[in-house]
Amino acid sequence: MILEDTICAISTAPGAGAIAVLRLAGPKAFNITENVFRPAAKNKSITEQAPNTVHFGTIYDGENDIDEVVITLFKSPKSFTGDDIVEISCHGAVFIQQKILQLLTDKGARLAKPGEFTQRSFLNGKMDLSQAEAVADLIAARSEAARRVALKQMKGGFSNELINLRSKLLEFTSLIELELDFSEEDVEFADRSQLIDLVLEIEHLLKKLIDSFSLGNAIKNGIPVAIVGHTNAGKSTLLNALLQEERALVSDVHGTTRDVIEDVMNIQGITFRFIDTAGIRNTIDKVESMGIALTYNKIKQASIIVLMMDAQDEDAKIHQAVSDVKRHMNSDKQQLIVVVNKTDLVDSEILEKRFSKKAFRELTGTDSVVPLSAKMHIHLDRLTSELLKTMDTGAIDNDEVVVTNARHYEALKNALEGIQRTLEGLQNGISGDFLSQDIREVLHYLGEITGQISTDEVLGNIFKNFCIGK
Amino acid sequence: MILEDTICAISTAPGAGAIAVLRLAGPKAFNITENVFRPAAKNKSITEQAPNTVHFGTIYDGENDIDEVVITLFKSPKSFTGDDIVEISCHGAVFIQQKILQLLTDKGARLAKPGEFTQRSFLNGKMDLSQAEAVADLIAARSEAARRVALKQMKGGFSNELINLRSKLLEFTSLIELELDFSEEDVEFADRSQLIDLVLEIEHLLKKLIDSFSLGNAIKNGIPVAIVGHTNAGKSTLLNALLQEERALVSDVHGTTRDVIEDVMNIQGITFRFIDTAGIRNTIDKVESMGIALTYNKIKQASIIVLMMDAQDEDAKIHQAVSDVKRHMNSDKQQLIVVVNKTDLVDSEILEKRFSKKAFRELTGTDSVVPLSAKMHIHLDRLTSELLKTMDTGAIDNDEVVVTNARHYEALKNALEGIQRTLEGLQNGISGDFLSQDIREVLHYLGEITGQISTDEVLGNIFKNFCIGK
Repeated sequence: MILEDTICAISTAPGAGAIAVLRLAGPKAFNITENVFRPAAKNKSITEQAPNTVHFGTIYDGENDIDEVVITLFKSPKSFTGDDIVEISCHGAVFIQQKILQLLTDKGARLAKPGEFTQRSFLNGKMDLSQAEAVADLIAARSEAARRVALKQMKGGFSNELINLRSKLLEFTSLIELELDFSEEDVEFADRSQLIDLVLEIEHLLKKLIDSFSLGNAIKNGIPVAIVGHTNAGKSTLLNALLQEERALVSDVHGTTRDVIEDVMNIQGITFRFIDTAGIRNTIDKVESMGIALTYNKIKQASIIVLMMDAQDEDAKIHQAVSDVKRHMNSDKQQLIVVVNKTDLVDSEILEKRFSKKAFRELTGTDSVVPLSAKMHIHLDRLTSELLKTMDTGAIDNDEVVVTNARHYEALKNALEGIQRTLEGLQNGISGDFLSQDIREVLHYLGEITGQISTDEVLGNIFKNFCIGK
Repeated sequence: MILEDTICAISTAPGAGAIAVLRLAGPKAFNITENVFRPAAKNKSITEQAPNTVHFGTIYDGENDIDEVVITLFKSPKSFTGDDIVEISCHGAVFIQQKILQLLTDKGARLAKPGEFTQRSFLNGKMDLSQAEAVADLIAARSEAARRVALKQMKGGFSNELINLRSKLLEFTSLIELELDFSEEDVEFADRSQLIDLVLEIEHLLKKLIDSFSLGNAIKNGIPVAIVGHTNAGKSTLLNALLQEERALVSDVHGTTRDVIEDVMNIQGITFRFIDTAGIRNTIDKVESMGIALTYNKIKQASIIVLMMDAQDEDAKIHQAVSDVKRHMNSDKQQLIVVVNKTDLVDSEILEKRFSKKAFRELTGTDSVVPLSAKMHIHLDRLTSELLKTMDTGAIDNDEVVVTNARHYEALKNALEGIQRTLEGLQNGISGDFLSQDIREVLHYLGEITGQISTDEVLGNIFKNFCIGK
């Protein structure tokens, strides 16, 4: 059995720091530690120490001292994985980290696989599968919103509710299946109207969760935005201006990450990804000249299309460009924002007249228009707030559950199909054995999310994407 | 006063890992923690917990939860810095680390300067200055030997002995200075023969420590090796062959570090740095044609010069090359190893005849000759053992004290000058006031090493090279 192994890994970021932490988990964690750790306080036995205590001492390999360290003891089952765990906080030289890791494996520990600590936590019943997946999301969080929804999911999120509803549903199935044993007597152990109530409740929850995925996916993966327009419309000026403003903002709030330097931007905790527009920056020209498939594809990948025009463009040109872009949009899922740039070059009265929402709607059929000057950094905030408006982020602010995981989304959709068939069956009064089949399917998909039903393959796929040491 | 501040920093390596550790030290560490940490166990008050315990809970900013963390409490004076310390072990997303750091500063902590935790440890008397410096060396350790001497120094190393001898010397000075007050009475409070014994003891120690620096410096900075020779002698083949063999070895023992890919090599725990020989790989040709200053400089920088010849070279050519290189060596500090390459192309009897130590000494005046074939990987081990032989590494194996720090070396040399003047003065029976002056100088330099005497400037210079978080 996997849980009989004692596993070890470096759990802090790779490379040299002031300190580093190694983690050792499993039945031999204390035993191995006793073998390599000499407490500074004499006659102290590691195995006799209280859990959740730290101890100063020296790691040695039997012959030589390797480092002075602080170790922390966690005792089963009250630990992250449910195993005995020892954390070793050593000096952060890569050389020392590696040397201690080597020593631990020499003494009987095995190098942990990616995510294996979290996997054990799941296998030992410390968290369900959706919580385990949230651990990885939390570690990978690169925006405020991503951190928030991951933390919420890690703390239970929707899985408690799912587990609860699933167990009620399981009860009904058992009753229905019991009826089948007495089929000749035509009894009904399962109260059909109560069952319908439960099924409706589940349907409602599933729909809500499925709906949340478009926001969840945007939070997790960022919202793809394509900026299109004529070459002289000022697309790169706009992008640079936005990045510059936001980068400064981001630095103030939570330090810079490297991504920010790329065409990725956090606006109020939501990540917007500007699709590589190397091929798209000349889109309109190409659309006008019948364009190319690649350009259309780029538009199709985006959730938001920002069409850039010049405030000096003539009405006919603007009208043409908007309808060209619209023609290639998948309109019900995508949103168009028309930026009218270079307002600094146009008289303000003319601006007001031509680019009010009303006038613009009359010209183009859309009133999502943002007059600004990228070069002069005028009204950039209008564009960012327009970008934000495309997402209904209320769920984050209200701390509602948001599904961010594509695996959960798939399972939820499958469960919804099953629950809707069940409901139909109930309404049509189908026989217990068909009903039971439909419900079993729902139980299966709901169980997949929380891990009550899981295969090695599913687990393997989930945990292989974790980092080592978690 | 600096120690009234509460400082904070991320102490683990930069970037994302499974977990990261933030450190908070100072009088408000517990207070700030209470403000941002909600223990999982209800009604638990941080300030009432036992020291050296860990606690699970949530970091929150008053409104929102930021992360689930484990905190460790260390209470003054029993902590690394001597202050109250709280370590926060959080999920390793860069975003989360930054967010918690920001929160701590919002609540009254200040970002720590490089090495400030260690500096406090020194200022609070938890370690002397040479120990504090060893902390940085330990974190920077990139070889087994460097780790070993740094650890030894961190644990006290030579400073205990220095402090002890210095305080004895201080006693004598006081007595001598007391004599001055009674100068008209011609008394001798300080026993001159005991003083001479002490001075001799100090002189002996200082000499030993100063001598150890050539090894210490090699351990810390690596031993510079220049490979010189004709372009067709196979210099890069040799370097690649060595790196390949050693890299494999290094991977087995303690994982690869990026440096290994450079022309740096750990051989039995000692680092050899191959000086960029872009200008030197054609050295001999240039030496023959009267060479250039740059090439000679490269030779002068190296502790070891590996001269590469071809086993098919004629005697006259070999003789000429060896004497050319020797002429540009600073012979008493540098060592020459002559590699005779391409032995696979020469009959073994001829090899034995021409390149035995004896024959080679007769031809060139040196018997440090290593016949090998870089291409066929034959006898490479002879070269590595020859490289090792150039260093007397016995001190490391015997766990003797080795001085690795240039600042200490300078102070030791200055102290030795003073002590030798003192000895001379004692032997010549100079007057107490001159004697006292010489001894005061020795006291000053010894005190500089351990930090008993230090200036803000010295401290600033030392700690600015630390990483933040240590």
